[in-house]
Amino acid sequence: MKNSLPEPSLIRLCKLYRLLQELEQEQIRDISSAELSEKIGFGSHNIRKDISFLGEAGHAGLRYNATALKEHIGFQLGLNKSKKACIVGLGRLGASMINYEKFKISGYEIVAGFDSNINKLETLHTNVELFPSHQIAEVVKRKAIELAVLTVPPDAVHDVSEKLVSGGVRGIVNFAPVLLTQKWPGVFIRNIDMIGEFDILSAMSNYSGDRRLHLNGSF
Amino acid sequence: MKNSLPEPSLIRLCKLYRLLQELEQEQIRDISSAELSEKIGFGSHNIRKDISFLGEAGHAGLRYNATALKEHIGFQLGLNKSKKACIVGLGRLGASMINYEKFKISGYEIVAGFDSNINKLETLHTNVELFPSHQIAEVVKRKAIELAVLTVPPDAVHDVSEKLVSGGVRGIVNFAPVLLTQKWPGVFIRNIDMIGEFDILSAMSNYSGDRRLHLNGSF
Repeated sequence: MKNSLPEPSLIRLCKLYRLLQELEQEQIRDISSAELSEKIGFGSHNIRKDISFLGEAGHAGLRYNATALKEHIGFQLGLNKSKKACIVGLGRLGASMINYEKFKISGYEIVAGFDSNINKLETLHTNVELFPSHQIAEVVKRKAIELAVLTVPPDAVHDVSEKLVSGGVRGIVNFAPVLLTQKWPGVFIRNIDMIGEFDILSAMSNYSGDRRLHLNGSF
Repeated sequence: MKNSLPEPSLIRLCKLYRLLQELEQEQIRDISSAELSEKIGFGSHNIRKDISFLGEAGHAGLRYNATALKEHIGFQLGLNKSKKACIVGLGRLGASMINYEKFKISGYEIVAGFDSNINKLETLHTNVELFPSHQIAEVVKRKAIELAVLTVPPDAVHDVSEKLVSGGVRGIVNFAPVLLTQKWPGVFIRNIDMIGEFDILSAMSNYSGDRRLHLNGSF
């Protein structure tokens, strides 16, 4: 394995892993980078380059064995190992995720849910064990939970994150509308922000529109 | 404006815009790229480079006027104009979003919700107008809706997207657990995928762990 895997390559390889898993289920044996490119929407050159970061050189026209490539990527990125996760914040969004069946078949087991409101813990219908938020650090440690989803109000994000990290969590997906920065060594953060997604789409749409006008010589 | 704004710069500038908005509310008048860097988690060199793409050169040590910089970025990326949006799929996740107050104060007005299940349209408590899914194209066109959030089951994604695009939508945030690719000219897509987020965090954590082992000479 090379020493440095750029973040965009890592992200593309994760998507490629799941695509290869689907292809395997559809009994597709072998596939070219051009065919992968068409299905996933990245350039075939990127796909070959990303794969080569993991130590296997690809060339145009080469056909990959879907299963072998999936297993190679999964092993190199550690996606072949199942991991335990928890949901913190059991409002509508958190409650909609705790019973999401696709987690388990994808290798992620939701083993705990947390909320500071005891009523929510008592009324939510789920097979997942629920705990009050003050037990986060202890439960995360005891159950060896590696990943967490945050669906708490903005003012709770900092406190809850500290508890998760002190329990040993390695990754946090933050849905709260406040930016959580990467400040703990070895703990990775992904911020999901609806307003941010709308901003990015607006800017892409506006910027491409402006450029079109510009290219047309309108101003 | 320069001709080409790389996607990572566009995404960082959108985040910078919202940070500057917060700083403005906190009455912070001027700020350096180093201070912005600390608050937002990107390098100050990146911040200066991103801003320079919009036609304003930044240099180390320069202090920006927070309001002027916010307005400059907002104008260049079109984030200063309010936009209409809709939610398609009113299950738990969609229902949790339709009444989300932060959209409106951020310049996005949710003006319609759609679901194929008539019961959901009749029982959901919201001030937003609700419609059956077969009316998507007509309503999107009539209300001049530019953005859409998809929270439908995977097998409905393709059909619903075609209807949105034929009505005139310019951007789609897809929460369904299936990859929606960018296949319509001038229509931009953002895929949100919980399994994908967990994959990325796992790979980051695993890859950084492996590299540490490697650097320590353990294998």
